[in-house]
Amino acid sequence: MRPFLRTLPRQLNQVRTMAASASTRKPVLSLESINPAVLDVHYAVRGELALKAVAYEEQLHDPVKAKELPFDKVVTANIGNPQQKGLNQRPITFWRQVISLLENPALFQDHLDVISKIYPADVIARAKTLYGEIGSVGAYTHSKGIPAIRKKVAAFIEKRDGHPANPEHIFLTAGASAGVSQILGLVLKPGEGCMIPIPQYPLYTATLAYIHAKPVPYYLDEATGWSTSTEGLIQGVNKAKADGIKVKALAIINPGNPTGGVLSRESMEKVVQLCYDEGIVLLADEVYQRNIFDPKDRPFISFKEVVRSMPKEVANSVELVSFHSISKGVSGECGRRGGYFELTNIAEDVVEQIYKMASVTLCPPVTGQVGVDLLVDPPKPGDASYDQWLAETTLTHDNLRDRSKLMSERFNQLPNMSCQPADGAMYLFPQIKIPERAIEEAKKRGKAPDVMYTLDLLDATGICSVAGSGFGQEAGTYHLRVTALCPGVEDYVGKIEKFHKEWIAKWA
Amino acid sequence: MRPFLRTLPRQLNQVRTMAASASTRKPVLSLESINPAVLDVHYAVRGELALKAVAYEEQLHDPVKAKELPFDKVVTANIGNPQQKGLNQRPITFWRQVISLLENPALFQDHLDVISKIYPADVIARAKTLYGEIGSVGAYTHSKGIPAIRKKVAAFIEKRDGHPANPEHIFLTAGASAGVSQILGLVLKPGEGCMIPIPQYPLYTATLAYIHAKPVPYYLDEATGWSTSTEGLIQGVNKAKADGIKVKALAIINPGNPTGGVLSRESMEKVVQLCYDEGIVLLADEVYQRNIFDPKDRPFISFKEVVRSMPKEVANSVELVSFHSISKGVSGECGRRGGYFELTNIAEDVVEQIYKMASVTLCPPVTGQVGVDLLVDPPKPGDASYDQWLAETTLTHDNLRDRSKLMSERFNQLPNMSCQPADGAMYLFPQIKIPERAIEEAKKRGKAPDVMYTLDLLDATGICSVAGSGFGQEAGTYHLRVTALCPGVEDYVGKIEKFHKEWIAKWA
Repeated sequence: MRPFLRTLPRQLNQVRTMAASASTRKPVLSLESINPAVLDVHYAVRGELALKAVAYEEQLHDPVKAKELPFDKVVTANIGNPQQKGLNQRPITFWRQVISLLENPALFQDHLDVISKIYPADVIARAKTLYGEIGSVGAYTHSKGIPAIRKKVAAFIEKRDGHPANPEHIFLTAGASAGVSQILGLVLKPGEGCMIPIPQYPLYTATLAYIHAKPVPYYLDEATGWSTSTEGLIQGVNKAKADGIKVKALAIINPGNPTGGVLSRESMEKVVQLCYDEGIVLLADEVYQRNIFDPKDRPFISFKEVVRSMPKEVANSVELVSFHSISKGVSGECGRRGGYFELTNIAEDVVEQIYKMASVTLCPPVTGQVGVDLLVDPPKPGDASYDQWLAETTLTHDNLRDRSKLMSERFNQLPNMSCQPADGAMYLFPQIKIPERAIEEAKKRGKAPDVMYTLDLLDATGICSVAGSGFGQEAGTYHLRVTALCPGVEDYVGKIEKFHKEWIAKWA
Repeated sequence: MRPFLRTLPRQLNQVRTMAASASTRKPVLSLESINPAVLDVHYAVRGELALKAVAYEEQLHDPVKAKELPFDKVVTANIGNPQQKGLNQRPITFWRQVISLLENPALFQDHLDVISKIYPADVIARAKTLYGEIGSVGAYTHSKGIPAIRKKVAAFIEKRDGHPANPEHIFLTAGASAGVSQILGLVLKPGEGCMIPIPQYPLYTATLAYIHAKPVPYYLDEATGWSTSTEGLIQGVNKAKADGIKVKALAIINPGNPTGGVLSRESMEKVVQLCYDEGIVLLADEVYQRNIFDPKDRPFISFKEVVRSMPKEVANSVELVSFHSISKGVSGECGRRGGYFELTNIAEDVVEQIYKMASVTLCPPVTGQVGVDLLVDPPKPGDASYDQWLAETTLTHDNLRDRSKLMSERFNQLPNMSCQPADGAMYLFPQIKIPERAIEEAKKRGKAPDVMYTLDLLDATGICSVAGSGFGQEAGTYHLRVTALCPGVEDYVGKIEKFHKEWIAKWA
């Protein structure tokens, strides 16, 4: 069992002598020597501003240094993280009860009498069923995800869209982000183009940079509620062609992040037709499909449903990958890392390649997969948990809708600020008319004007937002992304209003 | 709020006409059109054999078709998945009790009286402490992982190695695999080389193929317990240089997967010296560090400890990334996806780039992070859970050691089979002398001889193993990787013995 031990062979001694004779050894890894694609990756949502916010939070824990700050807490309005400390979205009780039983099956195996006093019957029944299908949540599952849960996702999609769904074309993922990265990395060869909306969620530009693919921007129309206009798409395609870039995929976020816009069927049909005409794979990020503020006037329609409702030749040929997540909606279980994507009109041998790549990452987190089960199959009327589930999810949904509406109304009353009301999602993306003097000052500070605004906002109020330049915006316009997840209005919007008026006055 | 609707603009109509005039539309995605790097990815652990095993499992659920099979269950000995159904490693009670409370804090907030009858005091105390640090396990955490848990990992490493560890250089990950992929993708430019042991865990070749980097093999010495000989390393470096490949990183797995070999300090020092001399970043996969069968004769020593114990110039310059996981050891919580890596001697601006890339993936699964807390800070003597924790982890550890020993002994008694006993990890990698006639038959079937062996083994016994060619092996040698996680001996080793004798006799 002893490994071969011997004196160092000649070659190694020679090498050593060379090294010794050389000057002091330089590190192997430096910004010059690492994979340059990494340097091209930008991710504003958690950039300089987020780091500064973390530093302020630490300072607030020091009773002495805390006094130096003009605020007593940091409000992280930069990420859609509903369950974070200080926000008021509580987890869905039904979810946590079921998962706690799966984490510790002894609770229903050995202590059923005790647990029955605390947990409703449908919680225990669901946990037993899932335990029968999964076994230990500590074991690897099928790399595509637990088969029984993929079947339930297919049923959920069929009920939502009125078109069949195949469990073998559904992959459970560690949140939508993991699925998006995996699909972009498979679809695109280095140098090929993926259309992305401007403004966009920076996951797309970050991933494209990493895989050496090219982002092809198309501009959403702020004046019309950030709608996707066919012109914008055509201009994007033509610009890419002019630049010699092959456009292979189109990413669309509906409901929009950061814009909150929800697409009409007409707009969606035009997008699908363009993908058909131009030979483009459609990637539909639909993680906010449950966050819809006015379902009658502006309902959520899935791209799967639109594709399948188009003329047969289009319906059966446009290749679509649709993403969903447990992190948003009314569950907001970001930390669990769960979601899925559905493949439509993708060739079977390509599906096999996607499966192979999924198997390299072993499997998505198991309780994230369980979250998908609870997302697509919630309690039904008559179930013991139904009333509480309905009350909790309705409260979360209505709070978000009402805060979003109130925030956009109040933002629109501010000088130098205009804000499109949101149809859905979790964010507002108000435009700020930044005075010339502030723009000059930002140049001096070596920052984008809207970045300077967000840094000043943080310094003055402890509110952490994201500058529009992190998402992309029409040249010469400046924006701010804030979440509508804040607890109280005065504590949040009031501070933004006060800061904004003073800041505009200062630089006017 | 209405999006701009108008008739399709001229350009789009033109495009449409062109498309219509063309013949029927071809799919965008095909094996020819996707990212070719994906086609280069091979992952034997879950390849053809694993798929066939899944099919057999489905067949066994059909009472009629099940009768056609010569076995009544499929034994998945192909992956180190301790908690999978049919195996006998139960989760650690302490872990599951703590996590169930974090999943449903109402249990200790509103039902403490009830829970106190079921849960030991230290479980409730740990859950309360973690809840205070984390809040909801459904919220995103710091992208590096929860700061309080990274501090505890640092303390664990300091106690293990006797050298300081910096929490800011520790990143929690979604299992070791996620960390390995992230680091390889950052360290290596396309075309640069990473040394990998042969045999190796296929995650490395799969990831290198995906990022267009080059695997540079170095051969482990089977005759000496799969030791890492300096010759093997030097030969690998020189071969790469001859081929014009810059060797930038060296991946080493200790304890070894699939070999089970544990490195001696002397071997490790030679590896570190080579990395110093040649300017190579050392990637140490130490996920089996807790699976050590003979701690006195062959203890686990971390590369961090070896690097820091070398002469100062080496100790302070060799760049090391060390990986650990909750999936193996005695916890075996694969499905939770948790682990960490520690950075040693990595430049701070490079650490910042690693942090940026981690932030794009948001954060590791939160209960996976909690698993790391429980891994590095288990119950202590005197704690209410200590005795049960000790009994459970000792049983798991001893079972694995005893089965591994017994399996290698029995394999060594078989004709045409020799098996190096394992010092640790979870696998055995016996060599099979495959008769010429079987090799010719394999040629006819278009399969590697050892792949034919594993397929025949599955057909005859329902035992799912992995062929050595999936890990790499010296040309002309054939191996089999099986886990030592099996339930009973007769049910598993007995079947392998019976099949092996018949198969060898058939082809002799």
